[in-house]
Amino acid sequence: MNGQDLYPRIDQRDLTSYTAAILMGAGIAPSDAHTTAEVLVASDVRGIESHGVARLEQYVAAIEAGVLDPVAQPEIVRQSAATALVDAHNGLGHVAGVFAMRLAIAKAQTADVGVVSLRNSNHYGIAGYYAMMALEHNLIGISLTNSSPLVAATGGRTAALGTNPIAVAAPTGGPIPFVLDMATSTVPRGRIEVAARKNISLGPGWSLDVEGRPTQDPQAALLGVLLPLGGAAESSGYKGYGLATLVEVLTGILSGSLYGPLIAKLWEVERPSYLGQFFMALSPDAFGTLDEFQTRLQDLQRLIKEAPLAAEATEILLAGEKEQRATERNQRDGIPVHPTVVARLEELGAAHRLGSLPRHI
Amino acid sequence: MNGQDLYPRIDQRDLTSYTAAILMGAGIAPSDAHTTAEVLVASDVRGIESHGVARLEQYVAAIEAGVLDPVAQPEIVRQSAATALVDAHNGLGHVAGVFAMRLAIAKAQTADVGVVSLRNSNHYGIAGYYAMMALEHNLIGISLTNSSPLVAATGGRTAALGTNPIAVAAPTGGPIPFVLDMATSTVPRGRIEVAARKNISLGPGWSLDVEGRPTQDPQAALLGVLLPLGGAAESSGYKGYGLATLVEVLTGILSGSLYGPLIAKLWEVERPSYLGQFFMALSPDAFGTLDEFQTRLQDLQRLIKEAPLAAEATEILLAGEKEQRATERNQRDGIPVHPTVVARLEELGAAHRLGSLPRHI
Repeated sequence: MNGQDLYPRIDQRDLTSYTAAILMGAGIAPSDAHTTAEVLVASDVRGIESHGVARLEQYVAAIEAGVLDPVAQPEIVRQSAATALVDAHNGLGHVAGVFAMRLAIAKAQTADVGVVSLRNSNHYGIAGYYAMMALEHNLIGISLTNSSPLVAATGGRTAALGTNPIAVAAPTGGPIPFVLDMATSTVPRGRIEVAARKNISLGPGWSLDVEGRPTQDPQAALLGVLLPLGGAAESSGYKGYGLATLVEVLTGILSGSLYGPLIAKLWEVERPSYLGQFFMALSPDAFGTLDEFQTRLQDLQRLIKEAPLAAEATEILLAGEKEQRATERNQRDGIPVHPTVVARLEELGAAHRLGSLPRHI
Repeated sequence: MNGQDLYPRIDQRDLTSYTAAILMGAGIAPSDAHTTAEVLVASDVRGIESHGVARLEQYVAAIEAGVLDPVAQPEIVRQSAATALVDAHNGLGHVAGVFAMRLAIAKAQTADVGVVSLRNSNHYGIAGYYAMMALEHNLIGISLTNSSPLVAATGGRTAALGTNPIAVAAPTGGPIPFVLDMATSTVPRGRIEVAARKNISLGPGWSLDVEGRPTQDPQAALLGVLLPLGGAAESSGYKGYGLATLVEVLTGILSGSLYGPLIAKLWEVERPSYLGQFFMALSPDAFGTLDEFQTRLQDLQRLIKEAPLAAEATEILLAGEKEQRATERNQRDGIPVHPTVVARLEELGAAHRLGSLPRHI
């Protein structure tokens, strides 16, 4: 039994409109509030609590502190047939992200590929949302973002890079689209926080303490840094470090935003984030036919899925399959939301006379 | 002291022309032989012995067995301003790869971005070579290839995917270009082979035995499979598995080549490889100015490099820095080549009356 089984379940439409209403109360225009709510709720629908409505209060706090502009609109600074630079003007990352990914998709529809670089943005939720926007257009979608420094470079002991995620989605034409949405650290910081609360020890290669020594003590890790995917150098942690840097090059560096350790701490409300993001759409049709692409991709999924199991494994999951299952269940039964998060949403809602959030029956 | 310090050193030009001469003897046209030799030697120059001239005999064996066509020329099957599909027609991967990357670069020079998918190709040496071709044109370069199955999907015990590398290069304008060139497995198979020869145990998370149990015994690992970057599921090995799949989607699946477990075993000469490869070039100039991009990128390098060190670390290396150092030394002092490889090259050369390979003084 999963901890989420004890959560109240909220209907996706109810959770989205409630979230949008809170955002409107914070001064955001209705269509932008709805876009942002959709992106946030999409994370909870996929079973990724860490990037969903639980973060709403942080966005509201950033707006109230004046470090995130709730009415800023993304603007195309320059473009060519296949590329564009967009400035988010320190507005909501979700709004600017959806704008930028739509632009990348439109370019791919005419030029076969579209690459959009977004500057001066904010935390935009799950990177996978933007990559997945390409799916309904039968395009491959890619999105990357830099983020607050939390991860050490191999050999370092301070946070040089963010958990800089890589998200790629490809249309399979079958029940499970290919969706990879992964941070380039071994684990997210949230996993260390959970271990600290439960007082359980960490896996090896997750983090260093403040002196730069490997630690499996969650309290020591909270004061230290995360390690990149791969962990220590001996287990190829420099590859995860290289991937995190790659994301930084294509986001903060390419767009002209902040980068690496220059980015503010997560949810700091002293200064704007000025994050950089990368959006790309690519048409499989440009290289053959979509049908053949999807036939091969479904066949690859089958070959991977039907392989003999490792010891103690019960199944082989495809990239995005776990989230696809969560989506199917949560859209049917309602989205499980942690009771504390429900209470916090209702507190935020009460300020705008919203009443309570209807529980799913 | 490094094992390579005992190797004879060969001048880069001598090694390239000797390698080209052997390839010409195998029926390859002079310009194609020179291109292939350049790519192979570039690997040795960068200190990556596993993908350099040590592999020459395998290419020759594939040609002699009739499973690689030494005279096939790459052909543009279809193209648009920013994309192209190229068919290698089962010719040398290096020749087709250089052709495809040049095409991606030319497209980026006019359309700001170029994406070229290459089908029916062969092993093309180091992926980083193609990504780095973009550097002299002040472009960001990307290259991916699928490869012979060696890596298990998380939860599986058989080889479902290759070590599918990701290579990305970006021009910094400074002494150290950004070059990430990494397999998506924790370690390459060569590292298991070396451990087996030396009878030393493997790191955790490197491989499974034939029953699908984690093993640190190199002999058991040789009969089993490699694990993806991250290792076991608990240390996020599913991320490496996801990255390997991503590479497969953008190479074998996108191009219409073989994929996943359908690809022949490494250096098998029973049937053609029909690999898929991906090449992309992107102009930083399309999103701002090259100068500003490079200023930010050098600043990021400095911030990473100058961070406080972890316990027991002596320095923080940038992506590509180790290979850059090897390049500087090897171009000056000659390239260290394993004595067995030198002997094998001279055997191959003798068949074409080439005489011995001149040692660097």
